[in-house]
Amino acid sequence: MQAYLDNSATTRCSERARDIMVKVLTEDFGNPSSLHTMGMTAEGYIKKAKEQIAKTLKAEAKEILFTSGGTESNNLALIGTALANKRAGNHIITTSIEHASVSAVAAYLEEMGFCVTYLKVDKDGLISLEELREAVCEDTILVSLMMVNNEIGAVEPIEEAVKIIKAKNPKTLVHVDAIQAYGKYRICPKKLGIDLLSVSGHKIHAPKGTGFLYIKDKTKIKPIIYGGGQQKGMRSGTENVPGAAALGMAAEEIYENFDEKIEHLYSLKERFIKGVTEIEGVAINGKTGRDSAPHIVSVSIDGVRSEVMLHSLEEKEIYVSAGSACSSNKPAPSKTLQGIGLPKAQLESTIRFSFCVDTTEEEIDYAIAALKEIVPFRRKFIRK
Amino acid sequence: MQAYLDNSATTRCSERARDIMVKVLTEDFGNPSSLHTMGMTAEGYIKKAKEQIAKTLKAEAKEILFTSGGTESNNLALIGTALANKRAGNHIITTSIEHASVSAVAAYLEEMGFCVTYLKVDKDGLISLEELREAVCEDTILVSLMMVNNEIGAVEPIEEAVKIIKAKNPKTLVHVDAIQAYGKYRICPKKLGIDLLSVSGHKIHAPKGTGFLYIKDKTKIKPIIYGGGQQKGMRSGTENVPGAAALGMAAEEIYENFDEKIEHLYSLKERFIKGVTEIEGVAINGKTGRDSAPHIVSVSIDGVRSEVMLHSLEEKEIYVSAGSACSSNKPAPSKTLQGIGLPKAQLESTIRFSFCVDTTEEEIDYAIAALKEIVPFRRKFIRK
Repeated sequence: MQAYLDNSATTRCSERARDIMVKVLTEDFGNPSSLHTMGMTAEGYIKKAKEQIAKTLKAEAKEILFTSGGTESNNLALIGTALANKRAGNHIITTSIEHASVSAVAAYLEEMGFCVTYLKVDKDGLISLEELREAVCEDTILVSLMMVNNEIGAVEPIEEAVKIIKAKNPKTLVHVDAIQAYGKYRICPKKLGIDLLSVSGHKIHAPKGTGFLYIKDKTKIKPIIYGGGQQKGMRSGTENVPGAAALGMAAEEIYENFDEKIEHLYSLKERFIKGVTEIEGVAINGKTGRDSAPHIVSVSIDGVRSEVMLHSLEEKEIYVSAGSACSSNKPAPSKTLQGIGLPKAQLESTIRFSFCVDTTEEEIDYAIAALKEIVPFRRKFIRK
Repeated sequence: MQAYLDNSATTRCSERARDIMVKVLTEDFGNPSSLHTMGMTAEGYIKKAKEQIAKTLKAEAKEILFTSGGTESNNLALIGTALANKRAGNHIITTSIEHASVSAVAAYLEEMGFCVTYLKVDKDGLISLEELREAVCEDTILVSLMMVNNEIGAVEPIEEAVKIIKAKNPKTLVHVDAIQAYGKYRICPKKLGIDLLSVSGHKIHAPKGTGFLYIKDKTKIKPIIYGGGQQKGMRSGTENVPGAAALGMAAEEIYENFDEKIEHLYSLKERFIKGVTEIEGVAINGKTGRDSAPHIVSVSIDGVRSEVMLHSLEEKEIYVSAGSACSSNKPAPSKTLQGIGLPKAQLESTIRFSFCVDTTEEEIDYAIAALKEIVPFRRKFIRK
């Protein structure tokens, strides 16, 4: 038995995504910039993929920009809008629990002279709308909020946040890092008033090296990569046609039978939480109900260090993360777990379990049984 | 019969590259940042790919940085070194016939306050070493030269150029855009004194969306994309493991039986040039011998416009480029063809044929026969 419960780190590429990728790699391999039929066929894949994605967001195809992944999407969203709008102001707002692909960019923008406000979060990882309201000012050019936190699955109040931001300063752009949210929620940026939205391919069963940024039509933004002027000059470089085609396919696929899939994920989550909380000294971080993301469970286990737990589970072919796994493999204290006020002991004994549509009840039960066996055994060896 | 003679625009993905990509997409799909076995397996692919590439350059694995393609490699090389070394000077040298992924970045750096010298080229597309010598000064932080021109196959005198640059200012960094050269030449950056070297995957039968930048150990350079700190902080974002594995494989593959492959390419080129120059009013741009790149032939055809020619060939399933095809599909006058002094009529009647190791003599003969048929026919319709 095996249980891959690290789907927030990365997912297996879907068969449909793989198949179209292979076709484009070896048959329809033209360069979309070429003027001949093979180029036009390649361009057709790009166009179709943009349409497939746009449909899932109720957006227009021209508002979808392909990138090399979520990190590039976030970099472009922040740097691109900051540089394009610096005459309008130099203030940026984000949260204290963003993924490094936002927080490290915010730090870079601070170095460049921008002023960044980091919103605090409560014990469930949620920002305060009041604090947000106070933070937005005339100088605020951008607010960047994650929709679903990657470590504890907190779901930020994006809709209310956008209303508050736009009421206070209609010119402020709103960027949403939806990397853990896309494919788990129906997101309609236009309805929500979101100007930019980042998505990563490999979190939704598309290949690594793919992603997109939704950019609302007419949003002022500068490129961060220059060259041949592909994608209307916003992202130069020969388009990753096989990747884009696979991403379009995966996007379409993940929103098929959507409600069923989400129901499946929540039922897995509930089953898992019920099982693990039967173990003494085990606590779930953040909200646990349907007001939290359907696929992420953050578990603190008294007296067992994360790495020990991770490797004990690994011996049983159960794969999980110690804290967040999408930053480089140096272990550093998690900003999210610190942000929600976890005491030091818990910071070091937290494991993230994350599911996908292919996760089965058997895997969940297998993981629960493993935890029930490992936890008491490992606790014996604690130095008191 | 079909003849894909647009291999400088893009190549078909090799079977070996595709196969390893598929394996990584669906079996070994872990995130290299994950601490468990699946993460380590993924990291192993990255490590192996870096070693495969390093071997082809006689470099060290740690000097290879994966990017999303040649354009990103060039952007990082130029912007990254300019920003990291701006205290040492603000002068950059490049040529007037660079690919847009260098020239557009140079223009962006000019906007940022850097001063850029653009070296002229002669009728064969070659820079003047004397002009280069005069241009290098105390303030010169970077010289960026392409090794093989993408439109006419001119091979720049990199070795002599580096000697001149380093003699005049040992601190000046040298970047080589080797996107059309890698896989066609044995390049040893260390021996040549090159500090940075850009390569694109899809020009060497690896997937689109892949590439690397060789960065000589200890070179001062800043990242252009920030985040989780992957690749030692130089390029954040979950590594494109399937793409990297495929790129490593394609790099290894293209240097196998290397001399035979190059001999094959030159023999195709010679056969092709012999055939097309039998047609009246046809001229080859730049050098035609073994002092030019083995895979590119730029042909000007008196009295037949490029697009007309391209589409006439396309009707016979012969795929070529009008000028350069790796910039976006807006036709603009080619800087390279202008640079070598082609008169306006020829600028508009130039076609690029480009070969790869899989190109056959039959394809060459088919293309020659097609040209011999099309050229006189199309010329009839010229307005005099």
